Amino acid sequence: MDASWLDAVKWDRDGLVPVIAQEVGSNDVLMFAFMNREALALTAERGRAVYWSRSRQRLWHKGEESGHVQQVHEIRLDCDNDVVLLKVTQLGHDPSIACHTGRHACFFQKLDGAMWQTVEPVLKDPERIYK
Amino acid sequence: MDASWLDAVKWDRDGLVPVIAQEVGSNDVLMFAFMNREALALTAERGRAVYWSRSRQRLWHKGEESGHVQQVHEIRLDCDNDVVLLKVTQLGHDPSIACHTGRHACFFQKLDGAMWQTVEPVLKDPERIYK
Repeated sequence: MDASWLDAVKWDRDGLVPVIAQEVGSNDVLMFAFMNREALALTAERGRAVYWSRSRQRLWHKGEESGHVQQVHEIRLDCDNDVVLLKVTQLGHDPSIACHTGRHACFFQKLDGAMWQTVEPVLKDPERIYK
Repeated sequence: MDASWLDAVKWDRDGLVPVIAQEVGSNDVLMFAFMNREALALTAERGRAVYWSRSRQRLWHKGEESGHVQQVHEIRLDCDNDVVLLKVTQLGHDPSIACHTGRHACFFQKLDGAMWQTVEPVLKDPERIYK
Protein backbone atom coordinates (compact mmCIF):
# COMPACT_ATOMS: atom_id res chain seq x y z
CA MET A 1 0.00 0.00 0.00
CA ASP A 2 1.18 3.50 -0.78
CA ALA A 3 1.14 5.01 2.69
CA SER A 4 2.43 8.48 1.89
CA TRP A 5 -0.98 9.90 2.82
CA LEU A 6 -0.35 8.53 6.33
CA ASP A 7 3.02 10.28 6.41
CA ALA A 8 1.26 13.58 5.70
CA VAL A 9 -0.47 13.36 9.07
CA LYS A 10 1.35 15.11 11.90
CA TRP A 11 1.23 12.50 14.63
CA ASP A 12 1.60 13.84 18.17
CA ARG A 13 4.35 12.87 20.65
CA ASP A 14 2.39 9.70 21.45
CA GLY A 15 2.00 8.80 17.77
CA LEU A 16 -1.70 9.73 17.85
CA VAL A 17 -4.01 12.10 16.03
CA PRO A 18 -7.28 13.49 17.45
CA VAL A 19 -10.38 12.42 15.54
CA ILE A 20 -13.85 13.96 15.43
CA ALA A 21 -16.72 11.73 14.25
CA GLN A 22 -19.59 13.62 12.62
CA GLU A 23 -22.84 12.03 11.54
CA VAL A 24 -23.78 12.29 7.87
CA GLY A 25 -27.21 13.83 7.46
CA SER A 26 -27.69 15.41 10.89
CA ASN A 27 -24.12 16.77 10.93
CA ASP A 28 -24.14 16.07 14.67
CA VAL A 29 -20.76 15.73 16.33
CA LEU A 30 -21.02 12.23 17.77
CA MET A 31 -17.75 11.69 19.56
CA PHE A 32 -14.07 12.45 19.82
CA ALA A 33 -11.28 9.91 20.05
CA PHE A 34 -7.73 9.20 18.91
CA MET A 35 -6.15 7.09 16.19
CA ASN A 36 -2.65 5.83 15.72
CA ARG A 37 -1.24 5.13 12.27
CA GLU A 38 -2.57 1.57 12.17
CA ALA A 39 -6.06 2.65 13.25
CA LEU A 40 -6.26 5.29 10.53
CA ALA A 41 -4.96 2.87 7.90
CA LEU A 42 -7.53 0.24 8.94
CA THR A 43 -10.33 2.82 9.00
CA ALA A 44 -9.53 3.84 5.43
CA GLU A 45 -9.13 0.24 4.26
CA ARG A 46 -12.33 -1.12 5.81
CA GLY A 47 -14.62 1.91 5.78
CA ARG A 48 -15.31 1.25 9.48
CA ALA A 49 -14.00 3.46 12.28
CA VAL A 50 -11.09 1.97 14.20
CA TYR A 51 -9.69 4.08 17.04
CA TRP A 52 -6.82 3.78 19.48
CA SER A 53 -8.01 3.34 23.04
CA ARG A 54 -5.65 5.27 25.29
CA SER A 55 -7.10 3.71 28.45
CA ARG A 56 -6.75 0.16 27.14
CA GLN A 57 -3.67 0.84 24.99
CA ARG A 58 -4.97 -1.16 22.07
CA LEU A 59 -6.92 -0.82 18.84
CA TRP A 60 -10.59 -0.20 19.42
CA HIS A 61 -12.84 -1.38 16.62
CA LYS A 62 -15.77 0.94 17.32
CA GLY A 63 -18.80 -1.23 17.98
CA GLU A 64 -16.80 -4.37 18.81
CA GLU A 65 -18.75 -4.77 22.07
CA SER A 66 -21.78 -2.53 21.59
CA GLY A 67 -22.52 -3.34 17.95
CA HIS A 68 -22.55 0.43 17.39
CA VAL A 69 -20.29 0.36 14.35
CA GLN A 70 -19.47 3.50 12.36
CA GLN A 71 -19.57 3.31 8.58
CA VAL A 72 -17.07 5.86 7.26
CA HIS A 73 -18.00 7.92 4.21
CA GLU A 74 -15.27 10.52 4.25
CA ILE A 75 -11.95 11.08 5.97
CA ARG A 76 -10.87 14.69 6.23
CA LEU A 77 -7.71 16.35 7.50
CA ASP A 78 -7.40 19.89 8.82
CA CYS A 79 -5.20 22.78 7.70
CA ASP A 80 -2.37 21.83 10.06
CA ASN A 81 -2.51 18.13 9.18
CA ASP A 82 -2.95 17.25 12.82
CA VAL A 83 -6.70 16.65 13.28
CA VAL A 84 -8.94 14.15 11.44
CA LEU A 85 -12.68 14.52 10.80
CA LEU A 86 -14.70 11.42 9.92
CA LYS A 87 -18.09 11.63 8.24
CA VAL A 88 -19.92 8.54 9.42
CA THR A 89 -23.20 6.70 9.56
CA GLN A 90 -23.71 5.48 13.10
CA LEU A 91 -25.07 1.93 12.83
CA GLY A 92 -26.51 -0.54 15.35
CA HIS A 93 -29.46 1.33 16.82
CA ASP A 94 -32.27 3.59 15.63
CA PRO A 95 -32.08 6.41 16.66
CA SER A 96 -28.33 6.21 16.48
CA ILE A 97 -26.17 5.74 19.58
CA ALA A 98 -22.49 6.68 19.53
CA CYS A 99 -21.87 7.18 23.25
CA HIS A 100 -21.07 4.43 25.74
CA THR A 101 -23.67 5.98 28.07
CA GLY A 102 -26.38 4.94 25.60
CA ARG A 103 -26.89 8.46 24.28
CA HIS A 104 -26.89 9.62 20.69
CA ALA A 105 -23.67 11.60 21.11
CA CYS A 106 -21.04 12.16 23.79
CA PHE A 107 -21.60 15.92 24.16
CA PHE A 108 -24.68 15.74 26.37
CA GLN A 109 -23.53 18.05 29.17
CA LYS A 110 -24.37 21.70 28.58
CA LEU A 111 -23.01 24.60 30.61
CA ASP A 112 -25.94 26.38 32.24
CA GLY A 113 -24.67 29.29 34.32
CA ALA A 114 -22.04 27.60 36.47
CA MET A 115 -23.44 24.06 36.19
CA TRP A 116 -23.07 21.24 33.71
CA GLN A 117 -26.57 19.99 32.95
CA THR A 118 -27.31 16.70 31.19
CA VAL A 119 -29.58 17.65 28.30
CA GLU A 120 -29.77 14.50 26.16
CA PRO A 121 -31.69 11.31 26.96
CA VAL A 122 -30.33 7.79 27.35
CA LEU A 123 -31.70 5.88 24.36
CA LYS A 124 -30.64 2.45 25.59
CA ASP A 125 -29.49 1.31 29.02
CA PRO A 126 -25.70 0.68 28.88
CA GLU A 127 -26.28 -2.55 30.84
CA ARG A 128 -28.25 -3.79 27.87
CA ILE A 129 -25.62 -2.52 25.41
CA TYR A 130 -22.61 -4.13 27.16
CA LYS A 131 -23.76 -7.50 28.38
CA MET B 1 -16.89 33.34 40.58
CA ASP B 2 -17.96 29.82 41.42
CA ALA B 3 -15.47 27.86 39.34
CA SER B 4 -16.47 24.33 40.31
CA TRP B 5 -17.69 23.76 36.73
CA LEU B 6 -14.09 24.35 35.63
CA ASP B 7 -12.90 21.76 38.15
CA ALA B 8 -15.22 19.22 36.55
CA VAL B 9 -13.15 19.37 33.35
CA LYS B 10 -10.40 16.77 33.13
CA TRP B 11 -7.45 18.87 32.01
CA ASP B 12 -4.68 16.95 30.23
CA ARG B 13 -1.05 16.74 31.41
CA ASP B 14 -0.44 20.17 29.83
CA GLY B 15 -3.47 21.70 31.56
CA LEU B 16 -5.40 21.81 28.29
CA VAL B 17 -8.66 20.46 26.94
CA PRO B 18 -9.40 19.81 23.24
CA VAL B 19 -12.18 21.96 21.80
CA ILE B 20 -14.34 21.46 18.72
CA ALA B 21 -16.08 24.53 17.27
CA GLN B 22 -19.31 23.77 15.45
CA GLU B 23 -21.34 26.34 13.52
CA VAL B 24 -24.93 26.89 14.63
CA GLY B 25 -27.32 26.44 11.73
CA SER B 26 -25.10 24.54 9.29
CA ASN B 27 -23.75 22.27 12.05
CA ASP B 28 -20.43 22.37 10.18
CA VAL B 29 -17.34 21.51 12.19
CA LEU B 30 -15.32 24.68 11.74
CA MET B 31 -12.11 24.05 13.63
CA PHE B 32 -10.36 22.27 16.46
CA ALA B 33 -8.14 23.90 19.07
CA PHE B 34 -7.23 23.78 22.76
CA MET B 35 -8.19 25.78 25.82
CA ASN B 36 -6.58 26.10 29.21
CA ARG B 37 -8.60 26.91 32.30
CA GLU B 38 -8.35 30.66 31.80
CA ALA B 39 -9.40 30.43 28.14
CA LEU B 40 -12.48 28.39 28.99
CA ALA B 41 -13.42 30.75 31.83
CA LEU B 42 -13.06 33.78 29.53
CA THR B 43 -15.03 32.07 26.76
CA ALA B 44 -17.93 31.44 29.14
CA GLU B 45 -17.74 34.93 30.64
CA ARG B 46 -17.58 36.85 27.36
CA GLY B 47 -19.52 34.61 24.99
CA ARG B 48 -16.57 34.84 22.58
CA ALA B 49 -14.20 31.97 21.87
CA VAL B 50 -10.80 32.29 23.53
CA TYR B 51 -8.34 29.46 22.88
CA TRP B 52 -4.84 28.60 24.05
CA SER B 53 -2.30 28.79 21.26
CA ARG B 54 0.17 25.97 21.76
CA SER B 55 2.55 27.37 19.13
CA ARG B 56 2.60 30.84 20.66
CA GLN B 57 2.06 29.67 24.26
CA ARG B 58 -0.44 32.40 25.00
CA LEU B 59 -4.18 33.07 25.02
CA TRP B 60 -5.60 33.41 21.54
CA HIS B 61 -8.70 35.56 21.31
CA LYS B 62 -10.14 34.05 18.13
CA GLY B 63 -10.44 36.85 15.57
CA GLU B 64 -7.92 39.14 17.29
CA GLU B 65 -6.01 39.56 14.01
CA SER B 66 -8.48 38.32 11.40
CA GLY B 67 -11.65 39.86 12.80
CA HIS B 68 -13.15 36.37 12.48
CA VAL B 69 -14.61 36.30 15.97
CA GLN B 70 -16.73 33.39 17.23
CA GLN B 71 -19.90 34.18 19.16
CA VAL B 72 -20.51 31.30 21.56
CA HIS B 73 -24.07 30.05 22.05
CA GLU B 74 -23.45 26.83 23.92
CA ILE B 75 -20.58 25.13 25.72
CA ARG B 76 -20.83 21.37 25.94
CA LEU B 77 -18.71 18.74 27.66
CA ASP B 78 -18.42 15.09 26.68
CA CYS B 79 -19.11 11.92 28.67
CA ASP B 80 -15.52 11.68 29.93
CA ASN B 81 -15.34 15.39 30.86
CA ASP B 82 -12.24 15.79 28.71
CA VAL B 83 -13.48 17.31 25.42
CA VAL B 84 -15.41 20.55 24.89
CA LEU B 85 -17.81 21.32 22.04
CA LEU B 86 -18.67 24.95 21.29
CA LYS B 87 -21.74 25.92 19.29
CA VAL B 88 -20.78 29.19 17.62
CA THR B 89 -21.73 31.79 15.09
CA GLN B 90 -18.67 32.54 12.99
CA LEU B 91 -18.58 36.33 12.54
CA GLY B 92 -16.47 38.68 10.39
CA HIS B 93 -17.16 37.48 6.85
CA ASP B 94 -20.09 36.26 4.80
CA PRO B 95 -19.91 33.39 3.97
CA SER B 96 -18.22 32.58 7.24
CA ILE B 97 -14.48 31.97 7.49
CA ALA B 98 -13.05 30.08 10.46
CA CYS B 99 -9.76 28.85 8.95
CA HIS B 100 -6.54 30.87 8.74
CA THR B 101 -6.25 29.74 5.09
CA GLY B 102 -9.32 31.85 4.29
CA ARG B 103 -11.61 28.85 4.00
CA HIS B 104 -14.94 28.28 5.71
CA ALA B 105 -13.61 25.48 7.87
CA CYS B 106 -10.27 23.84 8.59
CA PHE B 107 -11.24 20.36 7.35
CA PHE B 108 -10.80 21.01 3.64
CA GLN B 109 -8.54 18.06 2.79
CA LYS B 110 -10.42 14.92 1.82
CA LEU B 111 -8.86 11.50 1.45
CA ASP B 112 -9.37 10.34 -2.12
CA GLY B 113 -7.82 6.90 -2.61
CA ALA B 114 -4.31 7.47 -1.28
CA MET B 115 -4.25 11.26 -1.74
CA TRP B 116 -5.40 14.22 0.31
CA GLN B 117 -7.35 16.48 -2.04
CA THR B 118 -8.27 20.07 -1.24
CA VAL B 119 -12.02 20.23 -1.76
CA GLU B 120 -13.05 23.60 -0.32
CA PRO B 121 -12.44 27.03 -1.86
CA VAL B 122 -10.50 29.94 -0.38
CA LEU B 123 -13.15 32.60 0.34
CA LYS B 124 -10.68 35.37 1.10
CA ASP B 125 -6.95 35.63 0.44
CA PRO B 126 -5.10 35.21 3.78
CA GLU B 127 -2.86 38.14 2.76
CA ARG B 128 -5.95 40.30 2.88
CA ILE B 129 -7.09 38.78 6.17
CA TYR B 130 -3.77 39.22 8.01
CA LYS B 131 -2.40 42.55 6.89
